[in-house]
Amino acid sequence: MTSSFHDLWSELEPLGRNDRTGGYERYAWTEVDLQLRAWFAERAAGMGLSVEYDRNGNQWAWWGTPGPGAVVTGSHLDSVPGGGAFDGPLGVVSALLAVADLQARGVRPGRSLAVVNFADEEGARFGIACIGSQLLTGVLDPERARRLTDADGTTLADAMSAAGADPAALGRDVRALDRIGVFVELHVEQGVHLNDVGAAIGVASAIWPHGRWRCSFHGEGNHAGTTRLADRRDPMLPFASTVLAARDVAERAGGVATFGKVLVRPGGTNVIASVVDAWLDSRAPDETTVRSLVDAVAGAAQEAADRHGVGFRLEEESWSPVVNFRSALRDHLVGVLGGVPVLPTGAGHDAGVLAAHVPTAMLFVRNPTGVSHSPAERAEVADCLAGVQALAAVLEDLVTS
Amino acid sequence: MTSSFHDLWSELEPLGRNDRTGGYERYAWTEVDLQLRAWFAERAAGMGLSVEYDRNGNQWAWWGTPGPGAVVTGSHLDSVPGGGAFDGPLGVVSALLAVADLQARGVRPGRSLAVVNFADEEGARFGIACIGSQLLTGVLDPERARRLTDADGTTLADAMSAAGADPAALGRDVRALDRIGVFVELHVEQGVHLNDVGAAIGVASAIWPHGRWRCSFHGEGNHAGTTRLADRRDPMLPFASTVLAARDVAERAGGVATFGKVLVRPGGTNVIASVVDAWLDSRAPDETTVRSLVDAVAGAAQEAADRHGVGFRLEEESWSPVVNFRSALRDHLVGVLGGVPVLPTGAGHDAGVLAAHVPTAMLFVRNPTGVSHSPAERAEVADCLAGVQALAAVLEDLVTS
Repeated sequence: MTSSFHDLWSELEPLGRNDRTGGYERYAWTEVDLQLRAWFAERAAGMGLSVEYDRNGNQWAWWGTPGPGAVVTGSHLDSVPGGGAFDGPLGVVSALLAVADLQARGVRPGRSLAVVNFADEEGARFGIACIGSQLLTGVLDPERARRLTDADGTTLADAMSAAGADPAALGRDVRALDRIGVFVELHVEQGVHLNDVGAAIGVASAIWPHGRWRCSFHGEGNHAGTTRLADRRDPMLPFASTVLAARDVAERAGGVATFGKVLVRPGGTNVIASVVDAWLDSRAPDETTVRSLVDAVAGAAQEAADRHGVGFRLEEESWSPVVNFRSALRDHLVGVLGGVPVLPTGAGHDAGVLAAHVPTAMLFVRNPTGVSHSPAERAEVADCLAGVQALAAVLEDLVTS
Repeated sequence: MTSSFHDLWSELEPLGRNDRTGGYERYAWTEVDLQLRAWFAERAAGMGLSVEYDRNGNQWAWWGTPGPGAVVTGSHLDSVPGGGAFDGPLGVVSALLAVADLQARGVRPGRSLAVVNFADEEGARFGIACIGSQLLTGVLDPERARRLTDADGTTLADAMSAAGADPAALGRDVRALDRIGVFVELHVEQGVHLNDVGAAIGVASAIWPHGRWRCSFHGEGNHAGTTRLADRRDPMLPFASTVLAARDVAERAGGVATFGKVLVRPGGTNVIASVVDAWLDSRAPDETTVRSLVDAVAGAAQEAADRHGVGFRLEEESWSPVVNFRSALRDHLVGVLGGVPVLPTGAGHDAGVLAAHVPTAMLFVRNPTGVSHSPAERAEVADCLAGVQALAAVLEDLVTS
C-alpha cells in the first residue's frame, strides 16, 4: 500500500501548486479544478468504480449499484489560497486507497459504497465554504449561489457554464442525499491535539460553530499629501482599531477571531482609501460565545468608524451552527479502532454540513505542527498509511454490519 | 475659448474612466495611456506643433524650433487608481489652450515654446512617482527603472517594449534638459487654500518633502479556525497597530501619514495571513520632521511586530526632498498675474523634480472642496478658463522677455 499512496500522492502534488511559494491554488471550476476532477474520475474508473456528477457539481465514484443507504466516504480536492497539500486531498486519496484495500482483501460489501469529491469546500473563490454540500442538503439557496461572484466579478453560474457544468440544475438533491446511509470523512488534523497525546488517529466529537462577516468601512478617497488630518475620513483607521479589538475580544471570550482578507479601494500609495472591506472569521466552542464575540467586535468597529466620520456595515456571509457528531456512531468507530482519542475541531467541513441530515463521523490524522491552510501543513507518511488502515477498518465494519 | 476648453475636455473625459466608480484608471504604458498620448499628439499637430518623444517616454510638442532655453509648460495625463479628471490633464489642456491663445492673438515668441506630457507622474503602476522627469534629470537610475514591476510582475522595460517604446534608451537626457529654459506647470490645487481666500489662481511657494516606505510584516500563515491565539504569528495585528501609531505620530509632528495600499497574502477569509505589505506615504513642511516621523512609525511597527513574533522590514521606495521654488521667478509671476496668493503644497509634481535643475514655477487653480485623487475632485469651468488666461499671460511674458 505504501507504493499506492506514494503513486496517488505524486500525481496530485504538482496540480495547482504555486512553485514560488509552495502553496496550492486550487479554486472551484478553474482549469486546475477540472484537472483534479479528471484525475479523480480516472483513478476511480481504474478501480472499477462508476463515476458520476450530482446536480451540484459533487463527484461520486460508486462501488456497487448507486442507491439509498450507501456507506459514503471522501472529502474535497480544492484549497484555500496558499493552502497545504493535505487539507482535503488526504481524505479523497485515503478513501480511494481504503476501497482498494477492501477490494484487494476480497471484502464483499453488504451495502453499496461511494467515494465523494465535494465541490468548493474552502469557498476560496466565491466566498462561501462547503458550497457543494450546502447545495446538496438545501442549506444554500441555489439562486443565491448562482449569483455569487469571484474577485474578477465572474458569477458561480458563469464559472460552472464555462467549465461545462449546468448551473440551472443546482439545488437540494433529495435523491443524492437519500443515497447516503452514513458518511465518514477523513481529514488531517488542523491542530496539535493528536501530536500532544501521541496518537496517529482520532475521531471527531464536534465542530465549533463559526461564521464569516464582511466588515465594510466607507470613507472618502482623497490625496494622501494634501488632505489635512482633521479633514480626513480615512476608513483604514477604524479598520485597524477593529483588528486590534477583535483580538482582545476573542482572547477574553475564549474563541478565535481573524482578519485574513482585506481589500482596499482604490489602493494607491498616495491616495487615502475610500473603502476598506475586511472579512472577520470567528469561532468558539458554543454559539452564544461566537455571537457575543462578533457583536462586541461590531460595536468596537462602529465606535471607531463614528469617531473618524466613516460609515460601517457588518454583513453575515456565512454561519455554521455547532455540530455535535452522533455519539453512538462516534463511540462505535472508536471501538472499531481500538480506542482512539476523541477531539473537537474549530474547522468547518462538508461532514459538518451533512451531520444535520445523515449519520456522520470524522477521522483525524495527526499533524505534527498543527499548521494548516499553509504550505507548511504536513503529515507523516506513516500516519497517512495508518489513516488509510483506520478508514478501511471503519468502512469494512459499516458495509458488512 | 470656452468652446475650445469644452472640446478638449470632452475628448479626454471618457478615456480610462471607470464608469462604475467614475474614477480614472490611466496607468503608464497601458492601452489607455497610448490613447491619451495619441490624443495629445493629434491635438498638438492640429495646432501646427511638432511632436516628438524624448528618450524617457515624455512627449513634447514644439512651437518653433526645438532647442536650448525654451519656455516649457505642461503636466501629465496619467492618474492614480480611482483618480479625478483634473490632476494632470488640466495642466496639459491649459497648456495647449494657452499656446492656442498666443497663436490666435498673433504673439511672436522670442524663444521657442514647448508643451510637455510627462510619463508616469503618479507612479500608480510601478510604485515610483514622476518616473519620466526623474529619468530625464538623472535622479532615477535607468537600470533600477527598467526592473520596476507592476502588480502582475510585468517590468517597466517589458511594458515599454509592448507599447512600442525602447527601454534601452532610458536615462539622463542632457539634450532634452538643456532645452528647458524655464518650466511652468499649471495644476488643480489639492487643498482648499485658494477657496478659503477666495482666489481662482495662485502661485506655488514650495513642495513639502515626502516619501514612500514599504512596510513588510512577515508572520506565519495558518488555519483561522484551529490555530490557538497564543500560537499565532499574525502579521495583521502589528500592521493594525502601525496604522494607528502613524496617525498619532503625524498629528503630534504636524505632518501627514497615510496607508492607502495594503496587500495581504495569501488573502483567504479562513487563513491567518502570512505576509502583510503596506505602504506608508508621509509628508511634512520640512525634511527633519518627515524623517523623524517615519522613524517613530517604524519603531512602533517593530515593537508591535516583536510582540507578535512577526518579522518587520522597512524599505524606502522613494524620497523627494523639499522643493522651494525660486523666489525671483515666483515673485515675477505673481506680478504678471496682478498679485495672486502664494501657497505651498503637500503634493509631488514633475515641477518639483525639475526645480533642482532649471528655473521652475507652478500655478494652481482653485479646487472648491480640496478633494483630489478621487472621482469627486473638481474645478469650476470659470476657474479653469481663468487658469488658461493666467498661463497664457505668463507664457507671453516669458517668451517675449
